[in-house]
Amino acid sequence: MTEQQLRELLEEVQSGASDIDGALQRMRHMPFEDLGFAKLDHHRALRHGIPEVVFGLGKTAEHVIGIAGKLLERGNGNVLITRSNPAMAERVMQELPGGEHFPMSGAIRYWRDRAVTGKGKIAVVCAGTSDIPVAEEAQITAEAMGNEVDCIHDVGVAGIHRLISHSERLTTARVVVVCAGMEGALPSAVGGMVSVPVIAVPTSVGYGASFNGLAALLGMLNSCASNVTVVNIDNGFGAGYVASLINRL
Amino acid sequence: MTEQQLRELLEEVQSGASDIDGALQRMRHMPFEDLGFAKLDHHRALRHGIPEVVFGLGKTAEHVIGIAGKLLERGNGNVLITRSNPAMAERVMQELPGGEHFPMSGAIRYWRDRAVTGKGKIAVVCAGTSDIPVAEEAQITAEAMGNEVDCIHDVGVAGIHRLISHSERLTTARVVVVCAGMEGALPSAVGGMVSVPVIAVPTSVGYGASFNGLAALLGMLNSCASNVTVVNIDNGFGAGYVASLINRL
Amino acid sequence: MTEQQLRELLEEVQSGASDIDGALQRMRHMPFEDLGFAKLDHHRALRHGIPEVVFGLGKTAEHVIGIAGKLLERGNGNVLITRSNPAMAERVMQELPGGEHFPMSGAIRYWRDRAVTGKGKIAVVCAGTSDIPVAEEAQITAEAMGNEVDCIHDVGVAGIHRLISHSERLTTARVVVVCAGMEGALPSAVGGMVSVPVIAVPTSVGYGASFNGLAALLGMLNSCASNVTVVNIDNGFGAGYVASLINRL
Amino acid sequence: MTEQQLRELLEEVQSGASDIDGALQRMRHMPFEDLGFAKLDHHRALRHGIPEVVFGLGKTAEHVIGIAGKLLERGNGNVLITRSNPAMAERVMQELPGGEHFPMSGAIRYWRDRAVTGKGKIAVVCAGTSDIPVAEEAQITAEAMGNEVDCIHDVGVAGIHRLISHSERLTTARVVVVCAGMEGALPSAVGGMVSVPVIAVPTSVGYGASFNGLAALLGMLNSCASNVTVVNIDNGFGAGYVASLINRL
Amino acid sequence: MTEQQLRELLEEVQSGASDIDGALQRMRHMPFEDLGFAKLDHHRALRHGIPEVVFGLGKTAEHVIGIAGKLLERGNGNVLITRSNPAMAERVMQELPGGEHFPMSGAIRYWRDRAVTGKGKIAVVCAGTSDIPVAEEAQITAEAMGNEVDCIHDVGVAGIHRLISHSERLTTARVVVVCAGMEGALPSAVGGMVSVPVIAVPTSVGYGASFNGLAALLGMLNSCASNVTVVNIDNGFGAGYVASLINRL
Amino acid sequence: MTEQQLRELLEEVQSGASDIDGALQRMRHMPFEDLGFAKLDHHRALRHGIPEVVFGLGKTAEHVIGIAGKLLERGNGNVLITRSNPAMAERVMQELPGGEHFPMSGAIRYWRDRAVTGKGKIAVVCAGTSDIPVAEEAQITAEAMGNEVDCIHDVGVAGIHRLISHSERLTTARVVVVCAGMEGALPSAVGGMVSVPVIAVPTSVGYGASFNGLAALLGMLNSCASNVTVVNIDNGFGAGYVASLINRL
Amino acid sequence: MTEQQLRELLEEVQSGASDIDGALQRMRHMPFEDLGFAKLDHHRALRHGIPEVVFGLGKTAEHVIGIAGKLLERGNGNVLITRSNPAMAERVMQELPGGEHFPMSGAIRYWRDRAVTGKGKIAVVCAGTSDIPVAEEAQITAEAMGNEVDCIHDVGVAGIHRLISHSERLTTARVVVVCAGMEGALPSAVGGMVSVPVIAVPTSVGYGASFNGLAALLGMLNSCASNVTVVNIDNGFGAGYVASLINRL
Amino acid sequence: MTEQQLRELLEEVQSGASDIDGALQRMRHMPFEDLGFAKLDHHRALRHGIPEVVFGLGKTAEHVIGIAGKLLERGNGNVLITRSNPAMAERVMQELPGGEHFPMSGAIRYWRDRAVTGKGKIAVVCAGTSDIPVAEEAQITAEAMGNEVDCIHDVGVAGIHRLISHSERLTTARVVVVCAGMEGALPSAVGGMVSVPVIAVPTSVGYGASFNGLAALLGMLNSCASNVTVVNIDNGFGAGYVASLINRL
Repeated sequence: MTEQQLRELLEEVQSGASDIDGALQRMRHMPFEDLGFAKLDHHRALRHGIPEVVFGLGKTAEHVIGIAGKLLERGNGNVLITRSNPAMAERVMQELPGGEHFPMSGAIRYWRDRAVTGKGKIAVVCAGTSDIPVAEEAQITAEAMGNEVDCIHDVGVAGIHRLISHSERLTTARVVVVCAGMEGALPSAVGGMVSVPVIAVPTSVGYGASFNGLAALLGMLNSCASNVTVVNIDNGFGAGYVASLINRL
Repeated sequence: MTEQQLRELLEEVQSGASDIDGALQRMRHMPFEDLGFAKLDHHRALRHGIPEVVFGLGKTAEHVIGIAGKLLERGNGNVLITRSNPAMAERVMQELPGGEHFPMSGAIRYWRDRAVTGKGKIAVVCAGTSDIPVAEEAQITAEAMGNEVDCIHDVGVAGIHRLISHSERLTTARVVVVCAGMEGALPSAVGGMVSVPVIAVPTSVGYGASFNGLAALLGMLNSCASNVTVVNIDNGFGAGYVASLINRL
Repeated sequence: MTEQQLRELLEEVQSGASDIDGALQRMRHMPFEDLGFAKLDHHRALRHGIPEVVFGLGKTAEHVIGIAGKLLERGNGNVLITRSNPAMAERVMQELPGGEHFPMSGAIRYWRDRAVTGKGKIAVVCAGTSDIPVAEEAQITAEAMGNEVDCIHDVGVAGIHRLISHSERLTTARVVVVCAGMEGALPSAVGGMVSVPVIAVPTSVGYGASFNGLAALLGMLNSCASNVTVVNIDNGFGAGYVASLINRL
Repeated sequence: MTEQQLRELLEEVQSGASDIDGALQRMRHMPFEDLGFAKLDHHRALRHGIPEVVFGLGKTAEHVIGIAGKLLERGNGNVLITRSNPAMAERVMQELPGGEHFPMSGAIRYWRDRAVTGKGKIAVVCAGTSDIPVAEEAQITAEAMGNEVDCIHDVGVAGIHRLISHSERLTTARVVVVCAGMEGALPSAVGGMVSVPVIAVPTSVGYGASFNGLAALLGMLNSCASNVTVVNIDNGFGAGYVASLINRL
Repeated sequence: MTEQQLRELLEEVQSGASDIDGALQRMRHMPFEDLGFAKLDHHRALRHGIPEVVFGLGKTAEHVIGIAGKLLERGNGNVLITRSNPAMAERVMQELPGGEHFPMSGAIRYWRDRAVTGKGKIAVVCAGTSDIPVAEEAQITAEAMGNEVDCIHDVGVAGIHRLISHSERLTTARVVVVCAGMEGALPSAVGGMVSVPVIAVPTSVGYGASFNGLAALLGMLNSCASNVTVVNIDNGFGAGYVASLINRL
Repeated sequence: MTEQQLRELLEEVQSGASDIDGALQRMRHMPFEDLGFAKLDHHRALRHGIPEVVFGLGKTAEHVIGIAGKLLERGNGNVLITRSNPAMAERVMQELPGGEHFPMSGAIRYWRDRAVTGKGKIAVVCAGTSDIPVAEEAQITAEAMGNEVDCIHDVGVAGIHRLISHSERLTTARVVVVCAGMEGALPSAVGGMVSVPVIAVPTSVGYGASFNGLAALLGMLNSCASNVTVVNIDNGFGAGYVASLINRL
Repeated sequence: MTEQQLRELLEEVQSGASDIDGALQRMRHMPFEDLGFAKLDHHRALRHGIPEVVFGLGKTAEHVIGIAGKLLERGNGNVLITRSNPAMAERVMQELPGGEHFPMSGAIRYWRDRAVTGKGKIAVVCAGTSDIPVAEEAQITAEAMGNEVDCIHDVGVAGIHRLISHSERLTTARVVVVCAGMEGALPSAVGGMVSVPVIAVPTSVGYGASFNGLAALLGMLNSCASNVTVVNIDNGFGAGYVASLINRL
Repeated sequence: MTEQQLRELLEEVQSGASDIDGALQRMRHMPFEDLGFAKLDHHRALRHGIPEVVFGLGKTAEHVIGIAGKLLERGNGNVLITRSNPAMAERVMQELPGGEHFPMSGAIRYWRDRAVTGKGKIAVVCAGTSDIPVAEEAQITAEAMGNEVDCIHDVGVAGIHRLISHSERLTTARVVVVCAGMEGALPSAVGGMVSVPVIAVPTSVGYGASFNGLAALLGMLNSCASNVTVVNIDNGFGAGYVASLINRL
């Protein structure tokens, strides 16, 4: 039941075309959320600047092309495909031209709106070169959501002097995303250097007792820096998304 | 080496009282961070409004009283003691009068600065009455950091209509903290209702296969809502802290 | 907004005391679920025969007495307190007389409605004497929900002949609850003997590699009998509850 | 020893062709269960309407074709092959014509008896499009067991309004199967909306800390809704099977 | 249905007092296992020399005294109570005089039959003094089952020369039980020294990453010696029991 | 130092060609075990009838052929290759003719000594057809070690009557090996039916919460039958080996 | 067989009092290690400076006093009791006077030899005040083994500037022990600052997802600094021991 | 800021070309670590003899060739590539001639400096032939860092006499690296035989409950030998690296 339908129902009551018991009866059987237009409108406004996203992992190329094609036709926001594999990416780039393909993370981005709406800069930091794919996903997401992103790569905890040399870039960011595998210690170190929220992304980089990112995840959840929150292993998209939400505030 | 000491060294160079090789030699042996006054000043400004915190868990009452006593003498920010047990709390309240004691969470708060500096409202939601101690810790922390907090208690996922009845309160918050044990599903539901960052706190509430909060933790890390980040199990303080940082932006 | 309030609003529209835009505006700000009277009524009917339950674990005696006291004043359904400890039980029995106390499971039951509404018999089986507390919780719950319960205790998988000697009792039940710790094998054996749903409850009975019920839980989830579903470790209440729902169908 | 053989033995005793000690001696060495004709007959009646099932995972195509071929020749119940891979499915469809192939779940179904014997409707709900294969397995199983199935796809907890819009379909089902990966929160939400048994199926959908369905499994076991029971990860067949057993009651 | 009852039924058939259909009908409703006298007799013979055992862990002293009292009255085999705590042991020793109490393991043993029936010697080896309680439980069990036991204590893998100094005692045993906590390496070393079965008992001795015996358990399951099998953590009773079964062969 | 060398040294002492200090000095630097001829002889006798085994998993075909070739040339005991993959098996069968290849388990066996030396029969039981490869490995090993093996396949706990129908075969075995995946319940049921040692082999058969055999492993370790010991997941070889050692006693 | 006994045997051979076959026969039955005098002497020299240690955890006060008393009577090396609880410590200090008691770690130390034999300085670093007990155990051990120890407390990764301010103390140590709980990140940071071996000790400090030190343990095992090795959770003794061995080289 | 730049700044201060406030201002904005020349020089000296290492796992051949090529051009230390796969190794060997390729471990080594600088011998021990790749990585690393390495292969705990036969080689090493999979018991046995540091490397060799090296890892962390420290699963490089650091002391 849209607002229009509810209005018509009330008009029938007003005009006497419907009695109150009948109106109540019909309202009783309306799906609840159809009355939720206020909330939906509210959402639509809030969602302004948020890209449409297709999560490619585990989908077929056809499926992804179908969904992304409709999104590109319909709206005018940016469209982001994440976690495509090379074969999928090749087909997507052919059938839906105009995208940027980022092979490391598998992301494909279609720009529709390049306005920078974030209030400050988002720093995306990663510990080693192997963490770059996850950091790239965070970066691409944050950019597609209207943010300036400053990428600081390859600054591990075992080379503290390299980390400190970036302190100015870090302290001028409004939010910091930190991607790290292995022991996952970088968010704590960065968290101690800045006074803004740090979003930690454990990566599945490592071997043996890294248990595919579990060691990094536990490390980050136990961070001794109070300004650190954590997202799922390898979830660069989620980190970039939340960082963008914060940077809009 | 303080700024003063560095200034004096430069003056010696300027006056010829020290030659350049000698000055370099002395600088070579200075602890690095002593040159870091700029950063520290910067930090001090940023830290304005952040309370001093004493983590009580695993400390003796004497130790906590000693630390908190010094903090109360020295500064003029709010002071927060978290995770005191009843015996510790009783002694602290006697020896350091003027505090508010919150028995459920074990927090003790000393107000020194009641200015509300947060730009909006922080909502703190919890799933069941057993999650209230953790939610209370988040609330107390956020208040001590200058925020207005709106507490919404006992709105589990199995009673969706109760959750939806609070949608207005939720959608008007600038950040939302959600505390839940057992299956930890509430942050996803709340995350789908709001367009702002949601900080999820798994609680150790539950039994059996809740594994002391592990089930809730994993649930939250795998949230299908993209605006959810997670802190450690029972870490109400951390959630309140990050929510406050976000609400200052 | 109750049905009454909605009716009044429609009457105002009908009478012209309220215009349509104003009515829409007021409906927009109503909590959604208040429109849900149909569903709630529906629920109320369905909930007929379901006891009010207070989960005692982790609550204070005062808290439990307060909640249970109100439930006993207000309604006329059976009231069940689960997982009380001995001290709590003693106080509850004093302050809220009329209850039955079951020391093994810690349950306390107040009968208000002894009608047997379940369509058949529920069998509650347990593997060893140490599993009886959990089985008792299931039994008490199912009885309080209007079922006849047949308890078959101490029939482990290592004594198959004992199990088979109860095959007639098992095959005449309409639902079977099976509680087992250690290797959790009993539900599979029972599941192969009956053609009705089997609800398996892993118990935390065991030591060493039972890991507080994890071994039994995993065993039950991997049951080779297709008619087995599983609830949380030690969750006798949940098993009795679902068994009762099934037995009402 | 069949009933016939036992009858003959008794006739020998009656006729004096066998003395009692000899008869006892022969009975002593009979396999126990051969005396179980009563139970087996009983079972046969109860099993009416239960399809023959071949679990394809880890078997060769030849093996599956052999088993399924015999089942198709012999009986007149429906035959279901689950978890075939594409190559196996292709060969099965060629050599055993007449089946329906469901590529998403890998199920192949041979209809022999389309009678609808379930007393009500079974709802099969899934959280995301990636959960559809598991939901499909549940649906196909329940249909093959004589049930009308109502499929409600793609209603996650992070979009509560979508879930609520299906409340009428949910509340009119006699049993509900809910499939969800990631945080596994949907069964709790559905469980709070209905008053019938909910069978939760964790799916292995997700990545990182989903640990191949473990997060969803733990979430469901810790559900705050009391009407939820759980089957193994990805076990759509088991959920459809138990739902059908319940719907026959 | 006992043998006697079955005999009477056959006599009625023989005499014509019962017709065959009636007899079949009555047999149909007999509990299956009652026909199992052959098997039970067989068992009784095999069980000769196996003590009656009461597992004390988690039982009340009353319960243990009740069970053990009946066993002592009834049979003439040895009676063993395992895992009593000190308070329970004190009461048992008072109320059921004549037992030997072993405080380290909590075992209490009542001798009724001191015949040594084991064909050879059982060696019980333990790695450190902290493993002695578990080794003691194995020893007491094996002795009560009619075996000569040779105890070799405190021979860890880190002191190989001590272990080798016992090689003669080890190689003359017919079965070896090895109890070890921490890394659980001793069974492999012993397994390489002997040519008979080695039963490994992981103990919960250790701290930190021993995870209450899990490290030892995993170590033993992965033993590079092919003659090692494993029982549950701290299950000295089970090891002594199986060693005794082997030593009877 | 071989026995010969030690003899020569003593002869030098006897003849005066070496003084005692010099002899002691030389003995001091001898590798210890070289004095171990007694023990090695002892071992050799004990090892009579034990086949030479090459564990194929993770080795190259060349490596396996090299080792097995030498074993076949050198000794006259049976030779067993376990866990070959199809490609390796093909090459082994070509280059080392005369072997039996068992494709399900990947074992290859070369008979050199077909004497049956085991004192009784070893039963090898498995729960489902998918467990047969592991059971086959146990069977082949036990046969190669001189045992008569009775294989009982496909008797799961959910079909107890099938299991009981084999009770005579089970109770006449001297040792029983039981292989089961999924919930791993079969060893407990078998353990309750026999009075001899039961060696349980968890198999990695299953999916989801079977966690590649962990569920079965934990179930078996927690068996309520006292005569059960456990080997590593899928370790059919180890089970057959220990069963053979027991059957030689 | 001691050296003396072997000498006598050789003398008998030399004198003809024993023939060679008889001598060989007797040597055949000697325990192997009795020939190991060379190795034992060698060990004794190497063990010079290593204190005698009594691990108090899980022992009774009587037991500890007994062992330590003998050690104090017998030798002249330092004696160390670790992990005593307060009651045990009180009794030990009374009955074995002359010890130093360290209440935080529960260690008790008896000095017998204060020679400093370590070639350089051992630094013992800890992340937070709660890690001090473990650090203290490492320090006390290293001191008792003849080392100068430099303790650097409370320098977490989230306060990098504090850590760097100690870089001179760190870089002048010959070995570094680092104790840290929570995320266990400090060893990586320290490891990047020094060029000597770093021994990391995870502590059980933390809560929630620290899982009693597991998070720190995994973090340290995955350290991105190549000079880090790890000991068991809370094993300050082991770290101090190995550091001392290294510092003797 | 290099030393040169700092010198120039001081010269400007000395000459009056820059005033002190300006100089302070410029120093305030210098990256911290640029002042760190002392530390870097210090490091450079310490790093003498440490090879440049490229970790090949997860990198492309191009990437590895690029990095290694630059290292070979630039410096004059040894260059080590670890964990190359066969395809990568083939390309590296072609494009960067002069390397030694070790196919088992995937290491490629370029000698530039063959000076032996280690003060003693490093022993590298492994338990089984499957552990050799990891042992090889440790050996190659230690050699490239200027050490003599003594490799002792295939000496498992289940063949103690083989281990003891190498006691002289073990006791003459200055550091011992021990690689073992399965139960990981070898480091304890070796640790008890030597008085020097033992670095234990768990390998992922094994199956079933070895959980890819977890069993070995836990075993080693719980070693009863006090001189054992542990590195990550399969981390032969790290073990060789730390052993080399120790052997330089």
